[in-house]
Amino acid sequence: MSTPEEKAKRHKKRMQARKKIVDAGVAKSLEERGIVVLYTGDGKGKTTAAVGTATRALGYGYSVVVTQFIKGVWECGEKQLLTQLPQDAYPIQWHEMGTDFTWETQDFEADKAAARALWEKALAALRDESVYLVVLDELTYALNYHWLEKQEVIDAIQQRPPQQTVVITGRGAKQYLKDIADTVSEMRSIKHAFDNGVAARKGIEW
Amino acid sequence: MSTPEEKAKRHKKRMQARKKIVDAGVAKSLEERGIVVLYTGDGKGKTTAAVGTATRALGYGYSVVVTQFIKGVWECGEKQLLTQLPQDAYPIQWHEMGTDFTWETQDFEADKAAARALWEKALAALRDESVYLVVLDELTYALNYHWLEKQEVIDAIQQRPPQQTVVITGRGAKQYLKDIADTVSEMRSIKHAFDNGVAARKGIEW
Repeated sequence: MSTPEEKAKRHKKRMQARKKIVDAGVAKSLEERGIVVLYTGDGKGKTTAAVGTATRALGYGYSVVVTQFIKGVWECGEKQLLTQLPQDAYPIQWHEMGTDFTWETQDFEADKAAARALWEKALAALRDESVYLVVLDELTYALNYHWLEKQEVIDAIQQRPPQQTVVITGRGAKQYLKDIADTVSEMRSIKHAFDNGVAARKGIEW
Repeated sequence: MSTPEEKAKRHKKRMQARKKIVDAGVAKSLEERGIVVLYTGDGKGKTTAAVGTATRALGYGYSVVVTQFIKGVWECGEKQLLTQLPQDAYPIQWHEMGTDFTWETQDFEADKAAARALWEKALAALRDESVYLVVLDELTYALNYHWLEKQEVIDAIQQRPPQQTVVITGRGAKQYLKDIADTVSEMRSIKHAFDNGVAARKGIEW
């Protein structure tokens, strides 16, 4: 065992080394612009992180537009909270596909039409300089199911106002989405309560 | 190319198969209790997902306690928003270590004392039946730096009220944390805007 003094010394050294790295990183990072963040993978936390980002942006009074490409008629606590705040201080728009889960409806054309209608709203936000954050929740489904045109989506994201940030979520993001993203996090499921017979929890998972 | 009819048929079949799996899962999952969620890995989205969960729980009026074991004096949009809501409708407590980033202070004993003081607040929440969600943000640092006693933390989490959910975040979670968690998501960094010279963005990353 090392003495407390030795421990404190080692800790100080480690923290000094860390400070050097952090400071160097901060000095290097200078470009101020909006980014494209992609949360993909099969683990928990993708939509939840998008919700966290919306809360964060809204906390500074930035204008947020949320579009959800699958969970149309799903009740959720975050929508309940964020959409009932005073709009002048916390400007948020929340749009859904408005259909049931796609594996309930089983109707390609109806799903596609609903996704297209929602995309028009996303598109308007992606062209609007006053919008600081656009969330495209579960966009990967809409692309992978071919409800939306891949190139149209890429173009709209790339041609958005430079100060606007886009957060995209969903499993199975294809390489072209990773290519246009600045930050990509892949949520890997190590384990999930659901697999061990625990119900999805209100206020935690929706 | 397949005809629209063939495509619609294939889609319907796929969705029917999916519905079967989803329904079976829902039928199987019956236990109603709080869970332990662990967000770890080096990718973006851990604290952000914890914030999303807090927003979600608060949206239903559930009582939330957030403790942040590192980012003490870090300004953040989510805190700004969530802590200024009417407390009777949205009961949240937000506690921080109140020191600077640990690589700025470089003082083991001071950091440890601050972490211990914060842990006392977390402990009170973990014993309080009226608290629905406890966030232990960046807890892995406090454990890995040996600011807190590992066994004390494990015990407190395992002995919490059964309806309470705990969300733990931080890089480098050890196996014992994964063992006590019901759901573990590992955020893998595929790429990060910061590495390409883009500054961390207000309202997006803090």
